[in-house]
Amino acid sequence: MSQQQFSSGLLENAVQEFSKLPGIGRKTALRLVLHLLKQSESEVEAFGNAIINLRKDIVYCKVCHNISDTEICNICSHPSRDNETVCVVENIKDVMSIENTQQFRGLYHVLGGIISPMDGIGPNDLEIESLVKRVEAGGVKEVILALSTTMEGDTTNFYIFRKLAPFNVKITTIARGIAIGDELEYADEVTLGRSILNRVEFTNSFK
Amino acid sequence: MSQQQFSSGLLENAVQEFSKLPGIGRKTALRLVLHLLKQSESEVEAFGNAIINLRKDIVYCKVCHNISDTEICNICSHPSRDNETVCVVENIKDVMSIENTQQFRGLYHVLGGIISPMDGIGPNDLEIESLVKRVEAGGVKEVILALSTTMEGDTTNFYIFRKLAPFNVKITTIARGIAIGDELEYADEVTLGRSILNRVEFTNSFK
Repeated sequence: MSQQQFSSGLLENAVQEFSKLPGIGRKTALRLVLHLLKQSESEVEAFGNAIINLRKDIVYCKVCHNISDTEICNICSHPSRDNETVCVVENIKDVMSIENTQQFRGLYHVLGGIISPMDGIGPNDLEIESLVKRVEAGGVKEVILALSTTMEGDTTNFYIFRKLAPFNVKITTIARGIAIGDELEYADEVTLGRSILNRVEFTNSFK
Repeated sequence: MSQQQFSSGLLENAVQEFSKLPGIGRKTALRLVLHLLKQSESEVEAFGNAIINLRKDIVYCKVCHNISDTEICNICSHPSRDNETVCVVENIKDVMSIENTQQFRGLYHVLGGIISPMDGIGPNDLEIESLVKRVEAGGVKEVILALSTTMEGDTTNFYIFRKLAPFNVKITTIARGIAIGDELEYADEVTLGRSILNRVEFTNSFK
């Protein structure tokens, strides 16, 4: 579908706005807009306002910088979570992924990205200074680095490691290895090698 | 991703609204919402308002029922279009498709659907009465039926045909046949049969 003229400026405008979203072309945008046109006015208003209000009223937790409705998010303010362990992640999606595993009872620290000179993102664009302050304030015994195993992730890991070195805190990274259910013959060599180096003692508690 | 609790009610709300759209699940909805969160407040407001205003202010052309910004759409009010020929289509997307071909200079009539007892859509839910009135008022010499070749489309075609029979108007349907570029051996029998029955004289003007 080329840059066709729609019969209505309002329609054109709505389609253009939708097609700015990632992965949504003009054809999909038109389909979504025509769907919305069939809904009641109050439903469409609820849709539009949900988005506008999200952007306007969203708050980032002062402690971990996760998305929140309150100044301190409900993970950081949860009474029974282990506030001696802080897991450092790139973005809020990673928080959700880890929360979904239900294996982690500590707190988080959302960096808001990783160091990437190619994209012009340096340490000062990220929440690294606030992490250092958090550790400096005391109470944190372990920092788990849960960033991607890319060059940028490794750089960021190393930068944080150096920044935290002066403090009496244990620094760990999440385990890399063969995914559960994967067969050895299809695993890449680096992962397989790492999984042998970082082998763990066999106990019944492992599934 | 199961029905996870997001760390923010605003986020939850926006994701839920997005995942109501056709073909958009919770995972895609989250991706779109996080994208919007990175945009400036004014951009997100423009997005939300474009949708709300579309639904609130949209007008359907009084003549052809196409989407429009004015009472009479710019196709119906165009001075050089042939107002003796009316092409009947199911929805506004079909108008766009036909307009894109640049082969039709007549006017349209958008039914707003097709007769489908399974979905509870009868003739009175569609703009058929207004089509009859349009023809009754005179001036229309040919009505082109451009509906889908489904059972519902055929039913609707036949219903309109009977309704328009009392009037002195030529009723045609668009040609069905082998698509340009398609090979005969892959065409279905009904289409191939129809394309032989409805063969046209060979001239140089055909491409």
